[in-house]
Amino acid sequence: MSSAPLPRQSDDFPAWYGEVVRRAGLAESSAIRGAMIIKPYGYAIWEAIQRELDDRIKATGHENLYFPLLVPASVLAREGDLIEGFAPEVAVVTAAGGKELEEPLAVRPTSEALIWSTYARWVQSYRDLPLLYNQWANVVRWELRPRLFLRTTEFLWQEGHTAHETEAEALAETLTILHDVYADTIEQVLAIPVLRGRKSESERFPGAVDTYTLEALMRDGRALQAATAHYLGQGFARTFGVRYTGRDGRPEHPYATSWGATTRLVGGVVMTHGDDRGLRLPPRVAPHQVVIVPIARGDEDAEVHEAAAAVAGELRSAGVRVRVDDRPGHRPGFKFHECEVKGVPLRVELGRRDLAAGTVTVARRDRGEKEAIRLADVPARAAAMLDDIQASLLREARDEQRRRTLRDPGGYDAMVGYLRDAGGFAAAGWCGRRDCEARVKDDSSATIRCLPLDWEHPSAGACICCGRAAAGEAVWAQAY
Amino acid sequence: MSSAPLPRQSDDFPAWYGEVVRRAGLAESSAIRGAMIIKPYGYAIWEAIQRELDDRIKATGHENLYFPLLVPASVLAREGDLIEGFAPEVAVVTAAGGKELEEPLAVRPTSEALIWSTYARWVQSYRDLPLLYNQWANVVRWELRPRLFLRTTEFLWQEGHTAHETEAEALAETLTILHDVYADTIEQVLAIPVLRGRKSESERFPGAVDTYTLEALMRDGRALQAATAHYLGQGFARTFGVRYTGRDGRPEHPYATSWGATTRLVGGVVMTHGDDRGLRLPPRVAPHQVVIVPIARGDEDAEVHEAAAAVAGELRSAGVRVRVDDRPGHRPGFKFHECEVKGVPLRVELGRRDLAAGTVTVARRDRGEKEAIRLADVPARAAAMLDDIQASLLREARDEQRRRTLRDPGGYDAMVGYLRDAGGFAAAGWCGRRDCEARVKDDSSATIRCLPLDWEHPSAGACICCGRAAAGEAVWAQAY
Ligand SMILES: [Zn+2]
Ligand SMILES: [Zn+2]
Repeated sequence: MSSAPLPRQSDDFPAWYGEVVRRAGLAESSAIRGAMIIKPYGYAIWEAIQRELDDRIKATGHENLYFPLLVPASVLAREGDLIEGFAPEVAVVTAAGGKELEEPLAVRPTSEALIWSTYARWVQSYRDLPLLYNQWANVVRWELRPRLFLRTTEFLWQEGHTAHETEAEALAETLTILHDVYADTIEQVLAIPVLRGRKSESERFPGAVDTYTLEALMRDGRALQAATAHYLGQGFARTFGVRYTGRDGRPEHPYATSWGATTRLVGGVVMTHGDDRGLRLPPRVAPHQVVIVPIARGDEDAEVHEAAAAVAGELRSAGVRVRVDDRPGHRPGFKFHECEVKGVPLRVELGRRDLAAGTVTVARRDRGEKEAIRLADVPARAAAMLDDIQASLLREARDEQRRRTLRDPGGYDAMVGYLRDAGGFAAAGWCGRRDCEARVKDDSSATIRCLPLDWEHPSAGACICCGRAAAGEAVWAQAY
Repeated sequence: MSSAPLPRQSDDFPAWYGEVVRRAGLAESSAIRGAMIIKPYGYAIWEAIQRELDDRIKATGHENLYFPLLVPASVLAREGDLIEGFAPEVAVVTAAGGKELEEPLAVRPTSEALIWSTYARWVQSYRDLPLLYNQWANVVRWELRPRLFLRTTEFLWQEGHTAHETEAEALAETLTILHDVYADTIEQVLAIPVLRGRKSESERFPGAVDTYTLEALMRDGRALQAATAHYLGQGFARTFGVRYTGRDGRPEHPYATSWGATTRLVGGVVMTHGDDRGLRLPPRVAPHQVVIVPIARGDEDAEVHEAAAAVAGELRSAGVRVRVDDRPGHRPGFKFHECEVKGVPLRVELGRRDLAAGTVTVARRDRGEKEAIRLADVPARAAAMLDDIQASLLREARDEQRRRTLRDPGGYDAMVGYLRDAGGFAAAGWCGRRDCEARVKDDSSATIRCLPLDWEHPSAGACICCGRAAAGEAVWAQAY
């Protein structure tokens, strides 16, 4: 690992991001532009996210299944009326088995088409509903301006696809996923505070009646769409001929939802918590919550190594993910630096002098504080400190988001200036017309991130752009 | 679910297999020939297998990561000398992002090429070794004669790819994976007994120096290759220019292994344990280990439903995966039948009369026995019965495999006759020459499944085909 200082966030955030991702061993580019290799440390973070999402997806009554990667062009084309946006992003298989294919196959950019063409076989009666299914999969969408984790030609995600008897049920499903699955994971596990809202029409998923979103604010003042849940109405059911016999014996179309969260969340963790020294991982997603660095010359100090192993064993018994870094080829200073770059929440230093005093030195990554702790207290204290770090990172990010949220911008020019500088979120009244939305975008490259749900103090009054009566409040920001 | 009887195994095994997979809700065909949809019940079995394999992969020191789906044709082509077998199976992306691609991209049939071209960057010094990595992924290999789970155009698997300093280490890795990861999972969890062995040269993975395999015997007397681990020597390192500075300062090539287990294991579970009434699932992979069927008319019998919920709660607390089937639209008989087809290890029937007597009726799927059990004893007895079913299915399959293994065939014609009838495994001396291997295949369609490791009573003497001195014993069978 390079010991040259990282670029500073305030000087060049994109360079800082790229270097942190690289030096922390999260991911790297592959031979194919835009397709990334997720390295073990980055993948372990993704596995933690997967586990947490999967638990909540199942706890809310869903089951996992798996649909094929390749979708016949004709099936995808039927979706044409619904989804125009995808065509240019799609990768197409034209030959296989040593021959030209009669019909080209799309590598799935998302699976609505294939799944809804299958639901046509699965849904015959109202008794077959609801279908509450999810899949973990890879998808491909060609990216012209790729960025590790944030925009990649291939990414990993889960995509839920449900079918319901009534609109009310489908809408409730969308909000259950938004709040109980996504927001709960992202805030409580990733410690990333999110704004919950609906998308404006122009930012909706193609084919959706309503798109619900979670918007997070990164440390450079730009928004990251952290997860989305779509209420799709009956459009997919109509397009793919999904029809069932209702309770009254009449043919009906079910109501649909779809929802997804992706590997970009790993990028969100980096950009929400990282600082000029590297990553800062929330304990609940950290591959190693504690790294113990024995300070001993080579294998000389058997006592120190034994003590390190004993502490590690106790922490493991207490349910802590711990690693002993006893690599002989590296000095303690190198290991400390690596722990910092990799965002290990707690580093435990254990040397001869500590042992003699019956203590260890514990360093918190989030605040950089060091503390001597009695050996016997390590498991309990470490567990408490990990909880505190988890809570503290969320609090810090929440404060930062509040600080960077401009309420009552005091006029159009002030708002556009704020947005142009990527100051953060700007909240203001909006009339609901595309013209005004487009004008802000032209003037600042910012988009409406969402129309917030349950906003505490909705600003009444006029559209900040045109002065017409506001239909509600919108939150703008530049976005990833 | 159809209530027509299943085809009988002894009448038409392939028809039986197809119907069981369909009626149990494991998988179905998709619009693309050979690509299957894995349905929730089948996917839950796969998730259990994944969890068990993943635990063992990690326990033996490996980390997960993720490489891209699409591989530049030029990278795959470098592998040409090593892997000729793949070309006709590969699906090729020729357009993406709305344009013809300059270089076609292969959808990975396996990831050796991409991974070893990357290891060239990762391995510089002996200190970088070993690399012990695994990925969970989908792969595509065009199939002309597809069969659900067994041969599918796309399948899910894990593929391990390791790099080592010495040949001895790489060989030890291959055997650790074979025994401690694969055989342990397949025998102890899937209750499928396996023969452990090496492949003959003609059956080796292209590019492998040695392929180790686990061979299971299905109920129709045909073998299923359950998992393989390859010792790859230095071939991939040479081809992809992976070179490091050794301990003595000289440039060296690392030694490679790769190993994989796939969704075909789900098919193996079906064909090892299923009977004429449907699936029989080993409890350790059963999505529901116990299904409770309350016997009550509609919602009338609140008492019965409450008791069912209470029993379910106790079982859950005891760590049992349990489902209460209280669907109002179906009669108990239908539910019993469904439990049978789906191979639920234990079915608990609970009606008014049972309640009055303070008992429930418990039916074991493996033996079809029913027993009255006192309510208070259910959790402990159910746990014990599940353990017994797990052990019993393995024992039964082991007995079946022994019964169907022909030792000392008593001459070439007898062996070929046995193999032609798909009698099972036939073990006999083999001189090691391809000619003899090819002759058996021509005469019986059987192949050498493996040259067994640690065979208890190696038959000495002559090659059963040509009478020359045997190099060792081979096991033949018709194979999936
Ligand atoms: Zn306006
Ligand atoms: Zn011979």
